[in-house]
Amino acid sequence: MADSGNEKYNDLGLGTKASAGTQRSLNKDGTFNVKKLNVPFSERVNFYHSLVSMPWTKFFILIISGYFLANLMFACIYMMIGVEHLTGIDGLTTTDKFLEAFFFSSQTLTTLGYGRVAPVGTAMSTVAAIESMIGLLSFALATGMLYGRFSKPSAKIKYSNHAVIAPYQDINGFMFRVVNPQSNQLLEVEVTVTLSMKKTNSEMRDFFQLPLERAKVVFLPSSWTIVHPISSSSPLYKLTKEEVLAKDAEFIIMMKAFDESFSQTVYSRSSYKASEIKWGQKFVYVIKQEKDMITVDVGRIDETEKAELNKIPD
Amino acid sequence: MADSGNEKYNDLGLGTKASAGTQRSLNKDGTFNVKKLNVPFSERVNFYHSLVSMPWTKFFILIISGYFLANLMFACIYMMIGVEHLTGIDGLTTTDKFLEAFFFSSQTLTTLGYGRVAPVGTAMSTVAAIESMIGLLSFALATGMLYGRFSKPSAKIKYSNHAVIAPYQDINGFMFRVVNPQSNQLLEVEVTVTLSMKKTNSEMRDFFQLPLERAKVVFLPSSWTIVHPISSSSPLYKLTKEEVLAKDAEFIIMMKAFDESFSQTVYSRSSYKASEIKWGQKFVYVIKQEKDMITVDVGRIDETEKAELNKIPD
Amino acid sequence: MADSGNEKYNDLGLGTKASAGTQRSLNKDGTFNVKKLNVPFSERVNFYHSLVSMPWTKFFILIISGYFLANLMFACIYMMIGVEHLTGIDGLTTTDKFLEAFFFSSQTLTTLGYGRVAPVGTAMSTVAAIESMIGLLSFALATGMLYGRFSKPSAKIKYSNHAVIAPYQDINGFMFRVVNPQSNQLLEVEVTVTLSMKKTNSEMRDFFQLPLERAKVVFLPSSWTIVHPISSSSPLYKLTKEEVLAKDAEFIIMMKAFDESFSQTVYSRSSYKASEIKWGQKFVYVIKQEKDMITVDVGRIDETEKAELNKIPD
Amino acid sequence: MADSGNEKYNDLGLGTKASAGTQRSLNKDGTFNVKKLNVPFSERVNFYHSLVSMPWTKFFILIISGYFLANLMFACIYMMIGVEHLTGIDGLTTTDKFLEAFFFSSQTLTTLGYGRVAPVGTAMSTVAAIESMIGLLSFALATGMLYGRFSKPSAKIKYSNHAVIAPYQDINGFMFRVVNPQSNQLLEVEVTVTLSMKKTNSEMRDFFQLPLERAKVVFLPSSWTIVHPISSSSPLYKLTKEEVLAKDAEFIIMMKAFDESFSQTVYSRSSYKASEIKWGQKFVYVIKQEKDMITVDVGRIDETEKAELNKIPD
Repeated sequence: MADSGNEKYNDLGLGTKASAGTQRSLNKDGTFNVKKLNVPFSERVNFYHSLVSMPWTKFFILIISGYFLANLMFACIYMMIGVEHLTGIDGLTTTDKFLEAFFFSSQTLTTLGYGRVAPVGTAMSTVAAIESMIGLLSFALATGMLYGRFSKPSAKIKYSNHAVIAPYQDINGFMFRVVNPQSNQLLEVEVTVTLSMKKTNSEMRDFFQLPLERAKVVFLPSSWTIVHPISSSSPLYKLTKEEVLAKDAEFIIMMKAFDESFSQTVYSRSSYKASEIKWGQKFVYVIKQEKDMITVDVGRIDETEKAELNKIPD
Repeated sequence: MADSGNEKYNDLGLGTKASAGTQRSLNKDGTFNVKKLNVPFSERVNFYHSLVSMPWTKFFILIISGYFLANLMFACIYMMIGVEHLTGIDGLTTTDKFLEAFFFSSQTLTTLGYGRVAPVGTAMSTVAAIESMIGLLSFALATGMLYGRFSKPSAKIKYSNHAVIAPYQDINGFMFRVVNPQSNQLLEVEVTVTLSMKKTNSEMRDFFQLPLERAKVVFLPSSWTIVHPISSSSPLYKLTKEEVLAKDAEFIIMMKAFDESFSQTVYSRSSYKASEIKWGQKFVYVIKQEKDMITVDVGRIDETEKAELNKIPD
Repeated sequence: MADSGNEKYNDLGLGTKASAGTQRSLNKDGTFNVKKLNVPFSERVNFYHSLVSMPWTKFFILIISGYFLANLMFACIYMMIGVEHLTGIDGLTTTDKFLEAFFFSSQTLTTLGYGRVAPVGTAMSTVAAIESMIGLLSFALATGMLYGRFSKPSAKIKYSNHAVIAPYQDINGFMFRVVNPQSNQLLEVEVTVTLSMKKTNSEMRDFFQLPLERAKVVFLPSSWTIVHPISSSSPLYKLTKEEVLAKDAEFIIMMKAFDESFSQTVYSRSSYKASEIKWGQKFVYVIKQEKDMITVDVGRIDETEKAELNKIPD
Repeated sequence: MADSGNEKYNDLGLGTKASAGTQRSLNKDGTFNVKKLNVPFSERVNFYHSLVSMPWTKFFILIISGYFLANLMFACIYMMIGVEHLTGIDGLTTTDKFLEAFFFSSQTLTTLGYGRVAPVGTAMSTVAAIESMIGLLSFALATGMLYGRFSKPSAKIKYSNHAVIAPYQDINGFMFRVVNPQSNQLLEVEVTVTLSMKKTNSEMRDFFQLPLERAKVVFLPSSWTIVHPISSSSPLYKLTKEEVLAKDAEFIIMMKAFDESFSQTVYSRSSYKASEIKWGQKFVYVIKQEKDMITVDVGRIDETEKAELNKIPD
């Protein structure tokens, strides 16, 4: 009873009841396999989040549609008022008049205002005055979002496809490798590794935050191998490859850094399942000192080579 | 004497003299029941804060009024200069002329500039040149505020309506539950729980920061139950429901997180009064592992079920 | 020798050689009394800092002058090209022509473009095309700075005019009081108090970071009295008022908080000289619990009353 | 075997195999001598980073070229549609017509819209409507980047050209000096010093984070001398100048501060090679207390004077 109370809350909000399959809770791209049910619309919706995280194509379609629809709406209003209150309308048919009203609207919304077509009279001028104000406000939102998306920082940290269990000092270690492929500097890089594993003979899961050889580096100019030493206090201590697979282990990675270009803190997430771990392999060395430069071969960060694991005495 | 000195300062600025009623110091929505008296206007006022925190309707009324009044003012100036210094004025009556001047002003303020009506002569051109500059500057403030409000992060964390006293390991615990109903990720979520309680047989209040089972999670993908274990060092140790009510207890919650969509740190506050605590109840489990997904039933985060409290030996 | 080495570096960059007078190193408004000599212009200058910290009047004079001078310059260029390449120029004298060119420039720079006056021919059109682009870029800088200044957070924390030495538990304490007069919330407020004091019989200064009863509060809804207990380890231990004056003590205050309205971290600084300390006084209580509200009388935060200091046994 | 495992990972990502020469890993200006090979284009490219870090001249050339090319493109489209659908075209030759189309485009892209030349008909009006929208969006990006570059904080901390080994208390210390030459305040300044040194009789490098006399100051109003005391636990303990040169030592400096003008955290990096250390010298004192001011002679921060080093007993 006492124990089960503990299990319930110490779960990172990912559920302690293990599923049958080998489903992962955190995807490789850092998104969670979590679905929220029964959230009222008003609590769920966040326009800014939607606009900042949608794909670029969708974003542009939205802006273009909005521009088109706004002009359509105002063109209708101008038609209702009567295009005889606009100067320079040459069109004779209703379609032509509507098109002229549509383009007059576009020239007003963008505050372009050629003036070949211009409003005359109070009703027409009032609507045009309102439209130009709406244009300024809504284009400010659109361009703000555009720049906000463009200048949004994202730590494009590249993770090695596999983790390894490799010899480390006179024991062994769980290791994976990261690299910042871009030329912007990442500073004060911190990493957290959480291990989620089924309990033996149970449907429940345990969550462990793994101690690391080094959990923070001042900068990350090239590649960094993160190491969890499998000491006697590690939850992986003396577990075999088969046991780790049977326990459906998942290593959840969270990285935090300061991106100097964007002057902001950025986060990156990924995960390794038990099946993505190579046992008895180590990462090959990818840093070389040439004459004037230190070079890092980013293309080889996944490369490993055989490495005899240390025997752990009983 | 010595002791009272201590009480006085350790009070979070919420006053140590308990009121008679069951008034709360922090409202459910995170605002404080605090009123500041005798603050000079110049120290109190903060235009940005007012503009960023007023309701949307009030904000838009303000912008529209400002636009209207600016045009009104400039129309008066143009009338004083004389509309004969504007081209294309067709109006004959003063009202008509004023309206034309008004709309000319709106076309200048928004830098629309159709040009059907355009200034001629130094006085008219000078005022128009000034108006267009003022228009650019003030619309920049208005649209800046608009985007600032739109992109202002706010942690819309949903708190369970009630807290519970539930069994926890072989003792009991004070627990409440939170969920992030939105799809944006909250990272490095930290929580602080402060208990404010009347002293026994006294009109004074004590303030305690409660130790938590876990005060920080790396991410909050679904729901999180925050637990204060009522150990022998807890100020709630061995208190009965009646005693907690009599002491007019208030649990003040403060949460801090990094909102990934907004790339900013956000805060959220709430509180539970003694009357909002269910004794001998525990929260039902709302996380399920389906085939490909972990689901969280947000609609049920308030749901509790009976749970026998552990007896605490003397 | 060894000791003097230590003095030299532990000085906050404020100099360890005490001056004769009672000059302060940090002014009440948080600016330092520090002048930097022989800084090359290129290292000293920071346009953004200048523009963001100059007074509002100076800022507006700068923008208006810039606008005027840009138009003046472009008017000259248009005159050199010849105003016969502009449509709608009615002026006959050179002055009139220049004025028309000037206003045409203003209509181009703001992208107003009435079009009554419009460029004809390659030279004129080219300059106008360049001017409109320059206008867009420079008005973007001007309005960006305008909004940047407007939305710049600043913790307008109000400090009590005097600090006090008051009884605290069974010893005494150095205390001062702060209040946030505005309605925006300050969260996670941290305070650092550094004491700068002349060494006995020496021209050198010592710097001490004073331990506080509480150096951080989760929020600051009303007033907060910051207390440094004068325990036996305090540099103020057993010093008399006269000794503190003779040592030319200065208490340098630094506060840090998160401003919720601005979603940013803000800092505030102030200082108390020995002459601004009231001995044997304590701050009166300014927090009241009314029916529905806690009220803080901000107007009285300077108010103190007599308080017998505790005798410190030898 | 065990040991070599350790060396491999504890390397800051700068490589543990020492080069033959005296190459540095971190340049004086804070850039790393690191080249990343075989990074796929899509992972390497970051438009924002490129635009924010390119020199100003390149940035303006880019904007001007973009403006020119966009107008060129749209002029071609307008020619294809036929300039007879534009009012006010006076040109007779194709070149003249093209130039008029080009300038019409520029007046549309900037939303200037004089209207002397204005579109007539659906095709022409449609393209103009699209161009004005593209103009608003792309000028928003350009001006956003312009302001983003302008308001980007950078800690222009000035480092002394040389570091020194000087007497410190009854031992010696590694010291260098920094100053903030600008008038903006840097707050909560933190410094990290990492020493990279060849192992004795080995081609491998060791990395040490050096303990400092003081690693953080609350503010940096004038100059600050950072001191690493060479105690018995220091990797520099009892090393001679010749040994430090032979080990090809490099001191990598990282500073972090909050810039009050920009309301942002800023970082600064630099390094000292063994050859840039003066042994038996100390920095001259550059802070003076004048009547009303503390003055710092920034021009003299490089100045040192002879200082007998303390003898370290065996």
